[in-house]
Amino acid sequence: MSSEVVSAAPVFSSLGLRSHPPTIARLMSMALENPALLSLAAGFTDNRTLPVAAVQAAVAALATRDGEPEFLQYGSNQGRPGLRRLLAERLARLEPERDATTLAGELFVTNGSQQALYLAMQVLCEPGDIVLVDRPSYFVYLEMLAGLGVKARSLPVDADGRLDAAALRALLRAAKASGEAARFKAVYFVSYFSNPSGRSLSASEKTALGEILAEEGLILPAVEDAAYRELYYREPAPAPSVLSLRAWSRFPRLYLSTLTKPFASGLKVGYGVCTDADWRARMLHVKGHQDFGSANFNQALCEHVLGNGEFDAQLARIRPAYEAKMRALNAAFEREGLRELGWSWEVPSGGLYLWLRAPAGLDTGMESPFCHQCIAAGVLYVPGDLCFGDDPPRNHVRTSFGVLAEPELAEAARRFVTVAKRLA
Amino acid sequence: MSSEVVSAAPVFSSLGLRSHPPTIARLMSMALENPALLSLAAGFTDNRTLPVAAVQAAVAALATRDGEPEFLQYGSNQGRPGLRRLLAERLARLEPERDATTLAGELFVTNGSQQALYLAMQVLCEPGDIVLVDRPSYFVYLEMLAGLGVKARSLPVDADGRLDAAALRALLRAAKASGEAARFKAVYFVSYFSNPSGRSLSASEKTALGEILAEEGLILPAVEDAAYRELYYREPAPAPSVLSLRAWSRFPRLYLSTLTKPFASGLKVGYGVCTDADWRARMLHVKGHQDFGSANFNQALCEHVLGNGEFDAQLARIRPAYEAKMRALNAAFEREGLRELGWSWEVPSGGLYLWLRAPAGLDTGMESPFCHQCIAAGVLYVPGDLCFGDDPPRNHVRTSFGVLAEPELAEAARRFVTVAKRLA
Repeated sequence: MSSEVVSAAPVFSSLGLRSHPPTIARLMSMALENPALLSLAAGFTDNRTLPVAAVQAAVAALATRDGEPEFLQYGSNQGRPGLRRLLAERLARLEPERDATTLAGELFVTNGSQQALYLAMQVLCEPGDIVLVDRPSYFVYLEMLAGLGVKARSLPVDADGRLDAAALRALLRAAKASGEAARFKAVYFVSYFSNPSGRSLSASEKTALGEILAEEGLILPAVEDAAYRELYYREPAPAPSVLSLRAWSRFPRLYLSTLTKPFASGLKVGYGVCTDADWRARMLHVKGHQDFGSANFNQALCEHVLGNGEFDAQLARIRPAYEAKMRALNAAFEREGLRELGWSWEVPSGGLYLWLRAPAGLDTGMESPFCHQCIAAGVLYVPGDLCFGDDPPRNHVRTSFGVLAEPELAEAARRFVTVAKRLA
Repeated sequence: MSSEVVSAAPVFSSLGLRSHPPTIARLMSMALENPALLSLAAGFTDNRTLPVAAVQAAVAALATRDGEPEFLQYGSNQGRPGLRRLLAERLARLEPERDATTLAGELFVTNGSQQALYLAMQVLCEPGDIVLVDRPSYFVYLEMLAGLGVKARSLPVDADGRLDAAALRALLRAAKASGEAARFKAVYFVSYFSNPSGRSLSASEKTALGEILAEEGLILPAVEDAAYRELYYREPAPAPSVLSLRAWSRFPRLYLSTLTKPFASGLKVGYGVCTDADWRARMLHVKGHQDFGSANFNQALCEHVLGNGEFDAQLARIRPAYEAKMRALNAAFEREGLRELGWSWEVPSGGLYLWLRAPAGLDTGMESPFCHQCIAAGVLYVPGDLCFGDDPPRNHVRTSFGVLAEPELAEAARRFVTVAKRLA
């Protein structure tokens, strides 16, 4: 090494070098060029139904109660004990076979459930490792895997999107035969009113998945992402999670959920419940390095609204509101004639998304004429190919009805179908 | 791979395997066994002076102002534009050579400045790499480096704790000769009212450091941790940061600070200002995977109190309060006779710490008789050896006066000096 100054550019790690702008960022910057654009892309919640009064009242109650104002002080790395207890009790009502005290010990609070997902992957995966993922899957997770240098392998599904047991068995056996299965480090799925598909996994699908993995000797750490579980419209999805299902009892399991979607996305409070003490401890040690605890203020606020019923009152308000918005977008697509063009979709019973399948051969990807014409027509969506861990079909579209008001949803659908007709 | 179920234990990544409980956690669990214990260990702020009324008023103002309640909605990955602008303007007043508009573009908001530090190391360092650190340094950062598999190498200092230019030059030359310098990936220092030492680096020390690194051809990414810069008692430390100092102009620089310490630690809002566009972009991409943006609610709240003067009013309240607490602890150590036992320390002009040096040969480490006897006597401190990147002396102690009230500080000092006398 010579002593003259060679360069002022940082030398990046392999993680740093793998880091790229999310593809969705390109979409958003295209969107900025057209301020009249209506976005069906963002998975945001509706500003009109955010719990403004409940938040103001909760902060006022915290500020005026007796004792020290510890809610403005640092909290603990694992999260606020009172919040963890309330979340565990809530979860135990959904999973009656599980004990709330045990769940509270397994539970840790994170910066949205996204951070729990990141921690899980950090402590399990090396670059080159492989995670089995649902098909389609949560695209921000798929980009996280790419950032970590981890490959995604889709769990095979049939034409209706249900787990294909025979194909899964064949995939696992081939991977064992080739030695590739040694790089399988986890299995991940969004199980309730999925982002992007709106589907929920049935108990029998989840059970079959666990049984087949076990039969093939692949007791992998399982990550169940239940972010939308409480965002059903009328009734909860009936399937228990991996925390209760017998077929999963021997698996190390991480159950993820959040208060962000059902309450207020601006608070960014999520959590994980990890059944494996060693895995949980290692995630918490890394969290100790990342932030040594999520904001205590937000946790105290969530604890307060869980305790006084405002959290449930908010859910009771937004469930019919999102159902009405879903119906508005669905009706507009129907009315404008999208089905007649050969497009198909299921009507979800919870969540924030309509997942559209275009006729085979129509490319809806980021650089496709379809996508460009939609943006030119003033409507934005998430190209469905971003939502596949591998072998992406090009003819899917994720639309969200979270942000726009009902008249805007109708107009966005009209613009979308205009382009679909033009390119049919 | 056979088809029977071999094990249900997760297989961890190398990062997962390196993950260990922080040493400080052992201390805290020892502390839990003695509820009458007075802690000089935690770097928490004082519950008595937290800005309860300002926070309540800010949330009420946000809740009742016109327009959509976007403060409860997701924000952006880089952070709230209005908050970034106000922070940049504030920083430009401290660094008049820098332009606020440029700074706002370079600024990104994180979950405390800790997350910015983690992101910086993630994108720069591989396991086995080396970071140059101040001596002593921030022990949570040193544990983060260990978790990432990165080694710390101390910047040499003289007996008074000032940068030893000749020794630094020798260190760098030896590292270049051995080839080790190729693994130097960054230089890190806490420059204002340091955790743990209470010292501020002078402009000439910072300049000398930059000049020597440049002369030796080591234009490393520089991370200046200014978490305590605004927590001066009477006057700001006069030295500009690396954002202004000419000696650093060719270096990629990351300046870190926070609203946590000067306002409310429960809010966990920190920020980085990175002069290198590529480095900044890569950190933000990784942040996109970790949480795609810090809680927008907390950012809106901080923006509000920065804008309406409450942030400065809070600083005006806590500066004399922390000075009084520092003086109380300092006076108690003096009064109890600690100096007469051969202990020495400087009286800081900002921050939350008194950094004590025991007589040579007295071991104050975690497992030392001194530490155990302090806990038995009901007083907790941070063993100073945790605060050294390498070659730790065993005779330092970090005490914090942030949490305890003045009478408790006096009692804690009395207990501490009792043990010091017994083991003198």
